[in-house]
Amino acid sequence: MNFRFVGTGDSAQVPRFGCDCPACGRARVLSSHRRGACCAEVRVDGYRYLLDAGRTDLADSCEQETPEAILVTHYHADHVQGLFHLRWGTGTMIPVYGPKDANGCADLYRHPGVLDFRPGLKPFRPLMLPGLTVTPVPLNHSKPTLGFCLEDGGGRLAYLTDTLGLPGETERFLRDWGPDVVVLDATHPSTHHEPRNHNNLPMALQIIERLGASSAYLTHIGHDLDAECMTADMPLSGPVWLAHDGLELDAGAMMARRCG
Amino acid sequence: MNFRFVGTGDSAQVPRFGCDCPACGRARVLSSHRRGACCAEVRVDGYRYLLDAGRTDLADSCEQETPEAILVTHYHADHVQGLFHLRWGTGTMIPVYGPKDANGCADLYRHPGVLDFRPGLKPFRPLMLPGLTVTPVPLNHSKPTLGFCLEDGGGRLAYLTDTLGLPGETERFLRDWGPDVVVLDATHPSTHHEPRNHNNLPMALQIIERLGASSAYLTHIGHDLDAECMTADMPLSGPVWLAHDGLELDAGAMMARRCG
Repeated sequence: MNFRFVGTGDSAQVPRFGCDCPACGRARVLSSHRRGACCAEVRVDGYRYLLDAGRTDLADSCEQETPEAILVTHYHADHVQGLFHLRWGTGTMIPVYGPKDANGCADLYRHPGVLDFRPGLKPFRPLMLPGLTVTPVPLNHSKPTLGFCLEDGGGRLAYLTDTLGLPGETERFLRDWGPDVVVLDATHPSTHHEPRNHNNLPMALQIIERLGASSAYLTHIGHDLDAECMTADMPLSGPVWLAHDGLELDAGAMMARRCG
Repeated sequence: MNFRFVGTGDSAQVPRFGCDCPACGRARVLSSHRRGACCAEVRVDGYRYLLDAGRTDLADSCEQETPEAILVTHYHADHVQGLFHLRWGTGTMIPVYGPKDANGCADLYRHPGVLDFRPGLKPFRPLMLPGLTVTPVPLNHSKPTLGFCLEDGGGRLAYLTDTLGLPGETERFLRDWGPDVVVLDATHPSTHHEPRNHNNLPMALQIIERLGASSAYLTHIGHDLDAECMTADMPLSGPVWLAHDGLELDAGAMMARRCG
């Protein structure tokens, strides 16, 4: 499995419009520090899967290479916005899997175009796709939201965004399942004490410790967490990294961590 | 008044995802033939106004220069999609004017962020903005939709997209008002005989003739109209042009046409 972080930002992205904090200022000067809408890409056995669809170049990207399927964590605009344009294309239908959510986003269900919206995924029931088994797990968010436990026979990666903490049944499942890599929502900095729909950094680190994963990457990162991490007392340690747009994890790296 | 066509495509844009027609093929090779989401920009007396907000680089564009206001024709995703990202910014609120539409698009009203959604505009009641008078006129579309009649004391421009024909009261208003320039929806080619929500080319040309404008530009153009226009028997004539992304009309040009 090859896993690529395509976008690692929260809904405001980095830089946030109108913000003059150090992280936003840095991102305006150094494009490598920009963070786009949170989404990722998985390649396995020649198949390409997209996790979320908020990137605005989605149609262009799918022209380069049509995905085998799109897996949607939830129907907030920053996670599905690219579908608004892609749907009006032509050709082979593209399967879209996601949570059961009667509303979806705006008129996506009413005018699906080339998107083949499949029935809502059932939590903990594995979805068998070519080369990839996906087990959806419920997350805590303001709209029905799923995390995806991805397995290709070589490595196990849990993609867990957007969430505030984890539901008990999800945490129990993950501890049994034993991911090699955990990718987790860490939208807010430590100073954001009472987040409502996303983890702050201490919450994310506690979850990672409880899950006992050998490595973890934080994503869905807001500009103020980036600003906090620019200071000297950046509280990350151990096998935990901040993801960045374009970062790739390959099967070898996952296996190495699993065996090591 | 300086008027710029920022995007001139229909909801599928050009090239349309997956399409191998001559127009889509050309747009893939020559970026000057691409058409983005339909929107425009007006500059007058140092103020910048945006007509619709479907462009995906909206937040970046507003960082370069904050608009005085955003005028939304209607709340279909291809006309407001850029607001999903922009709203989560910070700083001075940006006024957004548009039709009365209880639903808006997705959760924009519920989470407006830096967007100051003003009460729905009343048809035919002029809105006085710095340097610009905007008279909203009803259009025929599948969602409440307004055209905008723009006047800066020098030139008069009617921006009429998205629409199928024109409501009688709108057509009567426009004939009395006497625009120098008409910008009109021409999504479909002549061969699309029974369009439902947008004009085909013959309908657009008939409207322009009835309005008696000295010049007209077609916008919200679909790939199949572009393909039709690539053939030798392209039926445009007289003072009617296909708009293209980036095309600018300046006050002088409008005045020249008005006097000539």
